[in-house]
Amino acid sequence: MIRFYNAKIMTMDGGTQITEGELWTDGALISYIGETPAELPVFEREIDVHGNLLMPSFKNAHTHSAMSFLRSFAEDVPLQTWLFEKVFPYEDRLTPEDVYAFDRLSILEYLASGMTAAFDMYFFPESSAAAFTECGMRLVFCGSINGTAADVDRLNDQFQKFRHYHPLVNYRLGFHAEYTSDESLHRGVAALAQAEHEPVYTHISETKKEHEECIARHGASPAQYFESIGLWEYGGGGFHGVWFDEKDRAVYQRNGLWFVSCPCSNAKLASGIAPLKECFAEGVNLALGTDGPASNNALDMFREMYLGAVLQKLRHNDAAAIPAAEMLRAATVGSARAMGLTDCDVLAPGKQADLIVVDLHAANMQPAHHIPESLVLSGDRMNVRMTMCAGKILYLNGEYLIGVSPEEILRDTQARIVRLTD
Amino acid sequence: MIRFYNAKIMTMDGGTQITEGELWTDGALISYIGETPAELPVFEREIDVHGNLLMPSFKNAHTHSAMSFLRSFAEDVPLQTWLFEKVFPYEDRLTPEDVYAFDRLSILEYLASGMTAAFDMYFFPESSAAAFTECGMRLVFCGSINGTAADVDRLNDQFQKFRHYHPLVNYRLGFHAEYTSDESLHRGVAALAQAEHEPVYTHISETKKEHEECIARHGASPAQYFESIGLWEYGGGGFHGVWFDEKDRAVYQRNGLWFVSCPCSNAKLASGIAPLKECFAEGVNLALGTDGPASNNALDMFREMYLGAVLQKLRHNDAAAIPAAEMLRAATVGSARAMGLTDCDVLAPGKQADLIVVDLHAANMQPAHHIPESLVLSGDRMNVRMTMCAGKILYLNGEYLIGVSPEEILRDTQARIVRLTD
Repeated sequence: MIRFYNAKIMTMDGGTQITEGELWTDGALISYIGETPAELPVFEREIDVHGNLLMPSFKNAHTHSAMSFLRSFAEDVPLQTWLFEKVFPYEDRLTPEDVYAFDRLSILEYLASGMTAAFDMYFFPESSAAAFTECGMRLVFCGSINGTAADVDRLNDQFQKFRHYHPLVNYRLGFHAEYTSDESLHRGVAALAQAEHEPVYTHISETKKEHEECIARHGASPAQYFESIGLWEYGGGGFHGVWFDEKDRAVYQRNGLWFVSCPCSNAKLASGIAPLKECFAEGVNLALGTDGPASNNALDMFREMYLGAVLQKLRHNDAAAIPAAEMLRAATVGSARAMGLTDCDVLAPGKQADLIVVDLHAANMQPAHHIPESLVLSGDRMNVRMTMCAGKILYLNGEYLIGVSPEEILRDTQARIVRLTD
Repeated sequence: MIRFYNAKIMTMDGGTQITEGELWTDGALISYIGETPAELPVFEREIDVHGNLLMPSFKNAHTHSAMSFLRSFAEDVPLQTWLFEKVFPYEDRLTPEDVYAFDRLSILEYLASGMTAAFDMYFFPESSAAAFTECGMRLVFCGSINGTAADVDRLNDQFQKFRHYHPLVNYRLGFHAEYTSDESLHRGVAALAQAEHEPVYTHISETKKEHEECIARHGASPAQYFESIGLWEYGGGGFHGVWFDEKDRAVYQRNGLWFVSCPCSNAKLASGIAPLKECFAEGVNLALGTDGPASNNALDMFREMYLGAVLQKLRHNDAAAIPAAEMLRAATVGSARAMGLTDCDVLAPGKQADLIVVDLHAANMQPAHHIPESLVLSGDRMNVRMTMCAGKILYLNGEYLIGVSPEEILRDTQARIVRLTD
């Protein structure tokens, strides 16, 4: 059992109210939250939080972790050039060992930014499962097939293999996007989802071009077309949704789908500003993701929350467009639930102990008039003092406790970068 | 003499090329940059930079440092409500001792973010001069009078007092804004600037309302009106410029004025997105500022560079809208020159030793395909390992060397916040 005491605690179970007290963990679980009782059990470790904040960890609801090998490789170039000249040809060179190495590089950044779970779409799932479980971090695979109905078997194989693979690993059905697959694939995935009673996820309406071409092909936007073929009978969601209109949002609202926004990626690639204010007002479920490190370029949920909030102000010419606290909710509870991680979404006894300590005494967090707003508008991953996943401390005061040193991870990646990008 | 060796060095003297070698300081100045010579002098300190980056420090070309007391006090409210209900009434309560205390709080954040100079507009200049000089950081006051010609004497008094006040302190002529003063003040400041051969600075075209009301009052935008009355005969510049059109930019271009952009403040207050792409294309001098901590809410030049870059991509629907490296130049060389700090703008022998060490081995900075772009698109103040101003190390590996502990500064501010904001 680990005891955190002298803490401000924001459970996110409900709103963003903050209480003072302590939190205990027992194995992977939270066992107690409350005031200091008269009698204390014996703990294996007791941590004085010094009045700092205990809160649920961030969950990254959309990423391609191993794309860290292309971070800063090609900047300030148009999207099509970037994808077809600077991404795809280089991804072809990747080996399973490369994915393992570059996943670990991203895990360093996730943990330092207070993230304990990644909803990952990429190649070589065995490599990613090894990297994440060895480091102690959660991984939810999102299926990323493209092509035709013939590819659905591969999705099902991966789903059956990874859905009960490890306590830290899970799998959700998904495919890359409407524009990289045909109707037979979409209907095949819908049939699989219905048979398995499973949600489905995909890239959706990220660019105007893609959104409009789907309308030309199917007579409906991606969201409306997918609903019409029964893809979302058991829920799910989509990544980006930049070009959603009110009918698309209504599809999400009535199906309880997750709108996973990636503000930094949409900004860097000039895809646009997603309608988060409208989603919030209409009761659409919001989550946040970083997207891959080559299209962001940071893996930093503080920056996603910040950009998510301020871009709505600019888009609507209204400083009050969306409450900052809504971004905090999306980055924690929302993202966890979007990935199906309902056992580590909030802080409560019986839940998985996936939590962070945020330094409230750093200059940028003072004065602490309104802590939730400060986390979004002035918070910084520099303020993350501790990251715990499933009851294990993985990052503490700048040190990693993941069984491998950052130096070794960097050495491993640096040798590979020369081969991959020369 | 201090020796930094085993460094990557980006002098910013010209472009953003990076060399490997060492840099020495002697007192406040840089005395050597180059390869390791055959014979070395005796140093008082030798610092192994471990292959990390030595570069010019950031300079904050627009701020109101002591407004840190209102950080996170009122969020997600419209601009007018914010200013008139949540800022002005509380500023009236400030004492000189409060300004000293909240300046020191902001100095903690400046130094941790790699900033060594602030171009500050606020009340009680003696308090600010004390706070900055005691901590070893540069302060350039910007005159902030408002009202009528009768107020120009006060500006002149402050200018004469603070222009040669201390090696770390300087003063530039300025006034708050066109909309908070009348033509007699503008003409009075112009006459003073001409008599003293000095540049002039002011808030300008921050909001659409202010920009259009000036046109209604004077038949010209602020930039064009000020040029017509001879305000900028010896240069200067303006803060924000969000609503500038091509004629306004031409005024800046032909007078060599500084366009000081504050992207984060303009976003939080929904003022708009400044035309940085156009300024860059037309040869207008660019600098960056954080604005005050209540309208940002962070004092973080990494975030300003990032937002400055990505908002141009969104505004122009073009991922190649502005080179990321241009934001790096604005935040360092540009901001220094905007404030008149031409002796600490770049790294070169004979220049003031105002420089920082950036950790290139942190996960978010790897791989280092293109370092200038990484600094802007994935860099983070977490990566600042050292901040030196005038040859003195003020911040090193998370520790402050400023003669006062962060704990003491926090204690001092916390007692005041209760009185100021209850």
